[in-house]
Amino acid sequence: MSAATADPHTVVMKFGGTSVADAERILNASKRIVEAAEAGSRVVAVLSARGKTTDELLAMAHEVSERPHPREMDMLLSTGERISCALAAMAINDLGREAISLTGSQAGIVTDASHTKARIIDVRAERIRDALDDGKIVLVAGFQGVSTNTLDVTTLGRGGSDTTAVALAAALGADVCEIYTDVAGVYSADPRIVPDARKLPVVSFEEMLEMAASGAGVLQLRSVEYARNYGIPIHCRSSFDPGPGTFVLDEEQTMERPLVTAVTHSTDEARVTLTGVPDRPGIAGEVLTALAEANVNVDMIIQNEPESEGSMADMSFTVPRADLPGSLDALEAIRESIGIAGIASDSSMAKVSIVGAGMRSHPGVAAKTFSVLGEAGVNIEMIATSPIKISCVIHEEQVADAVRQLHTAFGLGADAVLPEDPSGKHRPTVKTGDGEA
Amino acid sequence: MSAATADPHTVVMKFGGTSVADAERILNASKRIVEAAEAGSRVVAVLSARGKTTDELLAMAHEVSERPHPREMDMLLSTGERISCALAAMAINDLGREAISLTGSQAGIVTDASHTKARIIDVRAERIRDALDDGKIVLVAGFQGVSTNTLDVTTLGRGGSDTTAVALAAALGADVCEIYTDVAGVYSADPRIVPDARKLPVVSFEEMLEMAASGAGVLQLRSVEYARNYGIPIHCRSSFDPGPGTFVLDEEQTMERPLVTAVTHSTDEARVTLTGVPDRPGIAGEVLTALAEANVNVDMIIQNEPESEGSMADMSFTVPRADLPGSLDALEAIRESIGIAGIASDSSMAKVSIVGAGMRSHPGVAAKTFSVLGEAGVNIEMIATSPIKISCVIHEEQVADAVRQLHTAFGLGADAVLPEDPSGKHRPTVKTGDGEA
Repeated sequence: MSAATADPHTVVMKFGGTSVADAERILNASKRIVEAAEAGSRVVAVLSARGKTTDELLAMAHEVSERPHPREMDMLLSTGERISCALAAMAINDLGREAISLTGSQAGIVTDASHTKARIIDVRAERIRDALDDGKIVLVAGFQGVSTNTLDVTTLGRGGSDTTAVALAAALGADVCEIYTDVAGVYSADPRIVPDARKLPVVSFEEMLEMAASGAGVLQLRSVEYARNYGIPIHCRSSFDPGPGTFVLDEEQTMERPLVTAVTHSTDEARVTLTGVPDRPGIAGEVLTALAEANVNVDMIIQNEPESEGSMADMSFTVPRADLPGSLDALEAIRESIGIAGIASDSSMAKVSIVGAGMRSHPGVAAKTFSVLGEAGVNIEMIATSPIKISCVIHEEQVADAVRQLHTAFGLGADAVLPEDPSGKHRPTVKTGDGEA
Repeated sequence: MSAATADPHTVVMKFGGTSVADAERILNASKRIVEAAEAGSRVVAVLSARGKTTDELLAMAHEVSERPHPREMDMLLSTGERISCALAAMAINDLGREAISLTGSQAGIVTDASHTKARIIDVRAERIRDALDDGKIVLVAGFQGVSTNTLDVTTLGRGGSDTTAVALAAALGADVCEIYTDVAGVYSADPRIVPDARKLPVVSFEEMLEMAASGAGVLQLRSVEYARNYGIPIHCRSSFDPGPGTFVLDEEQTMERPLVTAVTHSTDEARVTLTGVPDRPGIAGEVLTALAEANVNVDMIIQNEPESEGSMADMSFTVPRADLPGSLDALEAIRESIGIAGIASDSSMAKVSIVGAGMRSHPGVAAKTFSVLGEAGVNIEMIATSPIKISCVIHEEQVADAVRQLHTAFGLGADAVLPEDPSGKHRPTVKTGDGEA
């Protein structure tokens, strides 16, 4: 990674697919970009492909090929972001500011050669710096790079444009990486389920990682990891509303935190239960290896201790719902050789999670979570915890009620303790609980 | 230009927009490409953007910008060919042959920095050669390159993909550049007007240049010029019919030629007549400069000698029909300062042309052309000639009749003297008039 030198007032602005979906939205994003430049910032904007472009390109690929070659898939998919950037550059030039669009390769996003899921290994931002020095606004095609050895176009996989933005912010020593989407920030719960969910003025990287992993869709896990590793503040805000959104910061910058920050949930869960599993060493490993080879991401795992040595055990785990058929195929293939008595599954599972950095010093949160869910008649099927998160697998039909009960019980709604950040500054020092921001 | 070394059996195949318009056609083109590779050739295929892709991208640009920046227009438009190439590479990989797609830049197409109408100044084909040496089929995005100084994406303008194909054929020392379109070759006249028009087995570069300039749309002028300059045989053939099409070759390779090869026509003509033009030196230059500055391509020009020195002259010229409004604006702007009495125009003009290398040694062709048209009651408004071409500007409603009469009078139809090339070899030695090909 190039050393980050402190260019003054550099901002990286990333606009997602819905924010550049049509001409009107591209013009809107272009105006936001020009406003930031007029305010004196050096501006780099990272754009995603327009709306449904990526889906359309994927459909084309599957029309001509049963198993599209990954290298060619990257060549294909990388065109979407280039289109967005060229269009925005045209619009910005019309607004009276010089702008140039750059492909991931031109922007110096150097990756490994893992097509469709490449990782950034270097950012050679000289061309961007030169353009910024010339007073230009720089538009960078997100989600893509160039492989270091083969000089092929690569793509970064899910959430790639967020990662591009954070990587550029790190390489350019930007003050902040602004992620513009169609939601106003990160909320204490999904506002579609909890009407009085609050927009959070600030969350820590660690909280954001747990929230992203447990269902909050606003930021991709990878980009948050990258931002944490390089200490890049993220400002997650609305493309359509000029007000501040949510800052994602190092924990020491967020000061004292409330006990619980947010309730997240996911309805994309399926559970698989293996019964009568022989209690031999290595069995769990064989099962998980078979699933990994089928590209299944196993989330939670529970194994019941057998009653006596040598008797049969039960094993349950959750997988993304879309991976359930593949999981069952993989398990049937090893069923006989391992000697599994029964394979059962339930595709209507959900997961509700409580996330908060304050939980570290307050072990009572788990007990309160379980008792709130118990009083609400919600049956907890599986539990997983981290120092700042408690996740419960429950039945899907109970998930909305569970989210609402927990949101109320932990006081995350109307009696909000965190004031909105009124300054709109990039890097606020938020003190919680004392009424000042 | 890199020195052309003679790689054995290298063929460049170019597929136009209609030949890759949808999944089925991409699969069809991919099969043609694989067949050539299976037959032992090293294959480079140059693809255009799919069907209406370029029009759609242009429409997007004009939705966000009144005057789209040329650099950004090139970034935008260049995506269309990349999509075609990536899709074809996927299809070919599925057919069991290794294929890679390359952007113009990756393929080493180096141009000047004239965005939207760049000229190729070098072809650095090492990456293509390496891929061919590895046994791969190489797909190259047509119509585009990279500017030598600024490393920006450039496009080559109208007919750019044909030029890409010919330039690669030259750089790779290919045996032939095959141009696949939705017509079977070059015809003795437009078959939609002349039902017994013949597909020509061979035409010379010079004839093809005159034909392209006078309305035959099958090949772009620029690519034919390029092919002539580098001595690259072009095989112009159908994407959908496996038979041979038309070879475009050096004149010495075409041997004896018939008197007349083809009748071409264009209905894209408008005539402007200036009356009462002062007879001062430099007036014609001023008029043509004004038109050139308005980006109008003037085709034929006629200036009547004034009856006596210092009296008034008339001047007529033809322009493409779409350029007529711009021409009239430009002329009105200089009308007073030059002192032009009248400006008249007629947008319903057409041009019929007789092309044939044999005309050089047979001056009677012009006389015969005029008498055929006269007998048919066709009024000739303007005439232009070259050593191998006679063009007559006539009224649009008479053009179909004029083409048919000339086609019959010069014996280009049923009594064909040129046999089809039955061998399908890339570089045939065609002798005409002796029944052998």
